[in-house]
Amino acid sequence: MLEPHSFAHGRWIAPGANAKTIASPVTGAAIARAGGSDLDFGAMVSHAVQTGGPALRAMTFHQRAKMLKALAVYLDTRKEGLYAINPLTGATRRDGGIDIDGGIITMMVIASKGRREMPDGHVYIDGDIEQTSRKGTFLAQHIATPLQGVAVHINAFNFPVWGMLEKLAPTLLAGVPAIVKPATQTCFLTEACLRMMIESGLLPEGAIQLIVGGTGDLLDRLGAQDVVAFTGSADTALMLRSNPHIMRNSTRFTAEQDSLNASILGPDAAPGTPEFDLFIKQAASEMTVKAGQKCTAIRRMIVPQAQLDTVSEALTERLRKTTIGDPADDPRMGALVSAGQKADVLEKAAMIGIEAEQILDASAFDLPDGPGFVAPMLFRCNDPDAAQNIHAVEAFGPVSTLLPYRDTAHAAELANRGQGSLVASLITHDPQVAREVTLASAAWHGRLYISDRDSMAEGTGHGSPLPHLVHGGPGRAGGGEELGGVRGVLHYMQRTAIQGSPDVLTAITGQWVPGATEKPAPQHPFQRTFREIEIGETITTDPREVTLADIEHFAHFTGDTFYAHMDDDAAKANPFFPGRVAHGYLLLSFAAGLFVQPDPGPVLANTGLNSLSFQKPVSPGDKITVRLTAKRKTQRTDDYGEVAWNVTLYNQDADQVAQYELLTMVSYER
Amino acid sequence: MLEPHSFAHGRWIAPGANAKTIASPVTGAAIARAGGSDLDFGAMVSHAVQTGGPALRAMTFHQRAKMLKALAVYLDTRKEGLYAINPLTGATRRDGGIDIDGGIITMMVIASKGRREMPDGHVYIDGDIEQTSRKGTFLAQHIATPLQGVAVHINAFNFPVWGMLEKLAPTLLAGVPAIVKPATQTCFLTEACLRMMIESGLLPEGAIQLIVGGTGDLLDRLGAQDVVAFTGSADTALMLRSNPHIMRNSTRFTAEQDSLNASILGPDAAPGTPEFDLFIKQAASEMTVKAGQKCTAIRRMIVPQAQLDTVSEALTERLRKTTIGDPADDPRMGALVSAGQKADVLEKAAMIGIEAEQILDASAFDLPDGPGFVAPMLFRCNDPDAAQNIHAVEAFGPVSTLLPYRDTAHAAELANRGQGSLVASLITHDPQVAREVTLASAAWHGRLYISDRDSMAEGTGHGSPLPHLVHGGPGRAGGGEELGGVRGVLHYMQRTAIQGSPDVLTAITGQWVPGATEKPAPQHPFQRTFREIEIGETITTDPREVTLADIEHFAHFTGDTFYAHMDDDAAKANPFFPGRVAHGYLLLSFAAGLFVQPDPGPVLANTGLNSLSFQKPVSPGDKITVRLTAKRKTQRTDDYGEVAWNVTLYNQDADQVAQYELLTMVSYER
Repeated sequence: MLEPHSFAHGRWIAPGANAKTIASPVTGAAIARAGGSDLDFGAMVSHAVQTGGPALRAMTFHQRAKMLKALAVYLDTRKEGLYAINPLTGATRRDGGIDIDGGIITMMVIASKGRREMPDGHVYIDGDIEQTSRKGTFLAQHIATPLQGVAVHINAFNFPVWGMLEKLAPTLLAGVPAIVKPATQTCFLTEACLRMMIESGLLPEGAIQLIVGGTGDLLDRLGAQDVVAFTGSADTALMLRSNPHIMRNSTRFTAEQDSLNASILGPDAAPGTPEFDLFIKQAASEMTVKAGQKCTAIRRMIVPQAQLDTVSEALTERLRKTTIGDPADDPRMGALVSAGQKADVLEKAAMIGIEAEQILDASAFDLPDGPGFVAPMLFRCNDPDAAQNIHAVEAFGPVSTLLPYRDTAHAAELANRGQGSLVASLITHDPQVAREVTLASAAWHGRLYISDRDSMAEGTGHGSPLPHLVHGGPGRAGGGEELGGVRGVLHYMQRTAIQGSPDVLTAITGQWVPGATEKPAPQHPFQRTFREIEIGETITTDPREVTLADIEHFAHFTGDTFYAHMDDDAAKANPFFPGRVAHGYLLLSFAAGLFVQPDPGPVLANTGLNSLSFQKPVSPGDKITVRLTAKRKTQRTDDYGEVAWNVTLYNQDADQVAQYELLTMVSYER
Repeated sequence: MLEPHSFAHGRWIAPGANAKTIASPVTGAAIARAGGSDLDFGAMVSHAVQTGGPALRAMTFHQRAKMLKALAVYLDTRKEGLYAINPLTGATRRDGGIDIDGGIITMMVIASKGRREMPDGHVYIDGDIEQTSRKGTFLAQHIATPLQGVAVHINAFNFPVWGMLEKLAPTLLAGVPAIVKPATQTCFLTEACLRMMIESGLLPEGAIQLIVGGTGDLLDRLGAQDVVAFTGSADTALMLRSNPHIMRNSTRFTAEQDSLNASILGPDAAPGTPEFDLFIKQAASEMTVKAGQKCTAIRRMIVPQAQLDTVSEALTERLRKTTIGDPADDPRMGALVSAGQKADVLEKAAMIGIEAEQILDASAFDLPDGPGFVAPMLFRCNDPDAAQNIHAVEAFGPVSTLLPYRDTAHAAELANRGQGSLVASLITHDPQVAREVTLASAAWHGRLYISDRDSMAEGTGHGSPLPHLVHGGPGRAGGGEELGGVRGVLHYMQRTAIQGSPDVLTAITGQWVPGATEKPAPQHPFQRTFREIEIGETITTDPREVTLADIEHFAHFTGDTFYAHMDDDAAKANPFFPGRVAHGYLLLSFAAGLFVQPDPGPVLANTGLNSLSFQKPVSPGDKITVRLTAKRKTQRTDDYGEVAWNVTLYNQDADQVAQYELLTMVSYER
């Protein structure tokens, strides 16, 4: 008998006298006792806010990203311990892969995004400097900083590991501590994973806590700096978000709810095309993986009227091959999570059956005994415009309904009838169909999955949320959003517009802002190590004249004999040039000649440049000067870091003629 | 007697029998009759969703931006008609400037951001392509598309024009129709402005409607594609957001509430410094502009303990000079908007008075008769840690409280005690103080305004939301966000992750995605006009060998004799190079030589480049080939447009050695 513990204010707390018994969905036998202990929710919130939050915020984004990566690696080496108890949830090993490996990979990707797309500092920079003054003495920059409260994660039963890790990774990367509340039915798997994370010693005290059982008065203790992230049913979401404290304090509440996700077979995807076969294969897979217990599973299959019979037959035939059994025996489909879920699924299927004909039922399968087993149920609705239930009632199991459509506008309209979904898919080989359906329906869906013969080999699956992409959807899907790389991290941070002088913005963001103080570099910046270079260090070069001979020479050497450089009359006829002008690349090349230090030193390579703009033409006889200022430093490995330099070119009248950001790779030490 | 009309489903509807009489806050005389008519809210929603939405969505972002600019220009030429009735709200002409000119300028800036920062298409591209497949056949791109419902704007009485325009501009730019519901007390000014917009004929039918009076069952008709944007009190926001339809349908609800905004005097800003004087001047101004009826006004002034007396004296002295009178006579301060508001302000001031000593009251002023006049009220609280009311009770008038602090951490803690605000300001000349306060408090505030001697001449004001910057704040401030340039537009759009092949993503975004079909250009692309160039048009150049002589020559010509190009042994010692390599700028220059067409033609200039990365070293003897593909087109004027080209350089082994986005300005016609 498993006894999953809570982990509250640094202590493991065993199930109490009133613990709930969890029964196996496969055998009906008791497998675990959970909850029933008195938790001190006030102490949990204090522990998170007073201990976990400050410890996390003291770290930089990169430090937290490294911590997440280390955690993911730690879990990866111990994951068989999780797979061992996974069948107790009714899930097959393949189902468990989505949950366990899927969760670990999600954490790794978020960690990697944190390293690549966030700074190695405490402040995230959101967008560009806003030029709110004429002379540039008073500017603005949006930033994001970690919320100073706690994130409460309330997770669904179907992904006990992924559901925890996909929320924890962005939260911890943001710098916010979390209290995790898994669904009780599968909490033993969540607890086993969280226990590994605690045992790893990689997390600061107070960063994560676990509630096994009810949340008591936890939500009444939340305020303006806290977040509730919920995954589960629409009814539970509504109950939670109606909490008066959450409402009154504008506590952030994000919900990811089951939705009536649709898949559309394109009008071009007739039988015999690779797209037709792909649709059937995907539809069958989405119905049976996790026994259909996925928030993203396809509940409505929208197919051309002319293909309705063919699709019905092909899909029925494929689904008949589904083997159903004890997940430990590796069948195609395992059990629903509990007898209660089975009852609920059958009840919802009956509601769908009022409006649609069931074309595949349990009689076609060899269904094992056991409280959680159900067969795939396929329905067909001939009048989807009149139907209500099929667009509103979700049977959270291997249940789906086929609906015919007339044209792409009708297909999109039917998809949108779900009133907001997590994902819709479209199988078409016609990019114009993809565009039409997208414009008509993207506003109703959090993700659109469009697949065809060109991309199916690398397709990631209709039902798979990716850490790179937002997960969530409008309306019925909860109106929330998670993941999406850095986007998901920002949901645990506050965006603030900072207004101030260039020096103030530089001090806050750690990135040099044009107009801020330029410090003379104590030696040539290319001779300074990554560690030594300070933001704001500047050199100004000697001037160099750009002669007509230089322009002629460069043109013939490179082959760039564009008339604006070669023919004075033709150049004058161009609205942008006063006559012959220097090549932009000649200016870049001369600039490098002016600022480069030729000898070996810490600056190893010019790896690229960003946002180059040529601002004023340079005529023969103009003299250019280059100013190079250290703008931003980002350590990339133990040995190297990227230094970005703000480079400006001026002419003899001190007019800026070009500006860009130069990227260099620099040794950490000499 | 003014009779502001509603504007519903294309018709002007006069006040009804039960209209409310609006009294002048200056004289008490009746000035207007408003509301009391039976509006058909169902017809209004239908008109917006069926007529206004489709018409707006048929336009591109740039077309909508041009429409907004034209609207703003139209209002600007007629604004004296608005200034003429502005004094009836109790506001001076200076107050009216914030409202009327402020609103028009906000619309202009949002229009300009739409032109510069959004595409001339129907789909907004959010972030970069996500590389979710190894071979690049299946990628992802986040996009945003307009919500397909209606935006309901519920505005406060204090800014009848700005309050409407700051919400309308982002909404219409997004492509979403709006129903505007102003506060009844000042609705005649809102109506006058909206009437001008309708009369302009610039807006499509159904784009905007106006409710004078109550909203009836309007909110019960909203669903997953609608937005409610509210500005006003916390209590009203709570009542509205609790609407069961809004809750159940996850209807977006954004609130911008009055908050307990703070201003901190830095520890360095002692008497005699420019910062001290700036603080006093700003504090007095924020208290008296609009008679303190601003959501962003300073309610708490947090000053060093040692300066409390000096600040009290200096501020009292300055405030005493405030002239109060009929706004038509151009006094320093006009009236509160109504007798009701005056009663409310006095009641709240009394609650503050329980915890703080009033150091300036009405006895110091020559206060006119009239239902809306009050004097500036300054309080001083010696124990701000123990106080409750001063951090929670907002008197929405010329009322503020001075609080002493011990150190910057304490100052930030006191600012945060407001439980979330729209803006906090900090007057300091020390960038490190700015950084400390920001890290400690940014998460509690939507905007931080940091000012000093360097930037004060161009300061935009603590209390002024700018269209460039987000306006809103966490917790007590409502948890919402408006404006912030494109950020504010996205609040009326749905973000969707699109997964598909490069061709699919290209068709949807209108921007060529690497891996998508490359069409052979029918003639050299530099000879094609902006109109003619099609996304995906590609040329591939002949190869060119990069010789050691070329490298030597380029080095001596430009002066860039960096050792990696000149010294084989030294280059080999560099971890990134196999030996001597070509200069990056030599490659760029040769690439231009390979793809440029020298004769005059539609391509007028290379204006810059973006995201250049050098991906693999090029050694002497390597042969490079360039591929140039039309990636993105953005019309800039009637005559020119910007064409961005994806440029890739390959070596003889077909390895990519460099990639960038080249920007050119191209004639629209030949």
